[in-house]
Amino acid sequence: MAAAASADDDGPGALIEALRALPGVGARSAQRMAWHLLQRDRAAALRLAQALSDALDSVHHCQRCNTFTRHTLCALCRDDSRNPALLCVVESPADLSVMERTGGFQGHYFVLQGRLSPLDGLGVEGIALDPLLARCADGAVREVILATSFTAEGEATAQVLGQVLQARGIGVTRLARGVPVGSELEYVDLSTLAHALGDRRPLA
Amino acid sequence: MAAAASADDDGPGALIEALRALPGVGARSAQRMAWHLLQRDRAAALRLAQALSDALDSVHHCQRCNTFTRHTLCALCRDDSRNPALLCVVESPADLSVMERTGGFQGHYFVLQGRLSPLDGLGVEGIALDPLLARCADGAVREVILATSFTAEGEATAQVLGQVLQARGIGVTRLARGVPVGSELEYVDLSTLAHALGDRRPLA
Ligand SMILES: [Zn+2]
Ligand SMILES: [Zn+2]
Repeated sequence: MAAAASADDDGPGALIEALRALPGVGARSAQRMAWHLLQRDRAAALRLAQALSDALDSVHHCQRCNTFTRHTLCALCRDDSRNPALLCVVESPADLSVMERTGGFQGHYFVLQGRLSPLDGLGVEGIALDPLLARCADGAVREVILATSFTAEGEATAQVLGQVLQARGIGVTRLARGVPVGSELEYVDLSTLAHALGDRRPLA
Repeated sequence: MAAAASADDDGPGALIEALRALPGVGARSAQRMAWHLLQRDRAAALRLAQALSDALDSVHHCQRCNTFTRHTLCALCRDDSRNPALLCVVESPADLSVMERTGGFQGHYFVLQGRLSPLDGLGVEGIALDPLLARCADGAVREVILATSFTAEGEATAQVLGQVLQARGIGVTRLARGVPVGSELEYVDLSTLAHALGDRRPLA
């Protein structure tokens, strides 16, 4: 009987394993997290268990824009004071949030919940392409602004989406290259992002 | 209505908040973790929720050594092939685990589940002192080996425990100072730790 193994199996081993599934969490971090939750903050452990169950039960994709919401339509999609002719396509809810914080956009959004990664063999099946095409066919959208990241993967995503949308006669623009090449959109400062939005140009 | 706030409240905001309670997890990490769990690996989210609930329900402290266990006594405490005269006092289950992996110790353990931090005003109420004293009074323990970390806090813990135990006539030793000063025990290489165990000396 290996004592270390039995000590692990006998205690919070399953919790440590489950924590390792979190992105960026290795064996040692998971062990520290489990210790903290069981020894120092059991209330936080209970809140996390409940928040996970609740989110799995109640948080799903908005039927119009594909972001996370607890309703059929998210708050932004329900807001009819926004411009229905402009649709800004972003990779993630975090990117939607940073665009909103620029204060420079009054249209609607569509969240891909992913991006193409040709080098990893991740194609359009990894993003919500069909829902995006359906969204663009609502008769109100005049311009789709591609606001994917200016990384290799974000650019590939913009290229493919641009071609598909233009083939359907939809006007497509891309954020201006004020965004430093190689950056994740989420990390760009807000004024740079606001300029890039103002300088958007027709897709080449 | 602030759109960014409503977008947060409408989605996995409670999950993101709950994830931020994990040690070392900031706002951006929590957002990425929530996205990963809801978009990429819902099975992992379910496993984590269940592991948390299960650990809260089933994992508690061993009645003899204070480590985590699902039983009244942990596997090490139930193992009567080990030497009952030696008791090694460690700060955490992680430290117990690394001591076991040296293969150099055949006695029993006691897990403080914390350490003194005089600068933070954390005194003996933060560690399992009374259970340790009860454990040492079993009539079998001849030597208590203090294997707390060689940090300021670990040394302070060893000093206080040493005084209390010696006042009760119990023989107390400390790991040899082969352990580099300023290190966390958990990060020490196993052979250094094995030497330090072999060279343990009476408390000054
Ligand atoms: Zn929506
Ligand atoms: Zn035990």
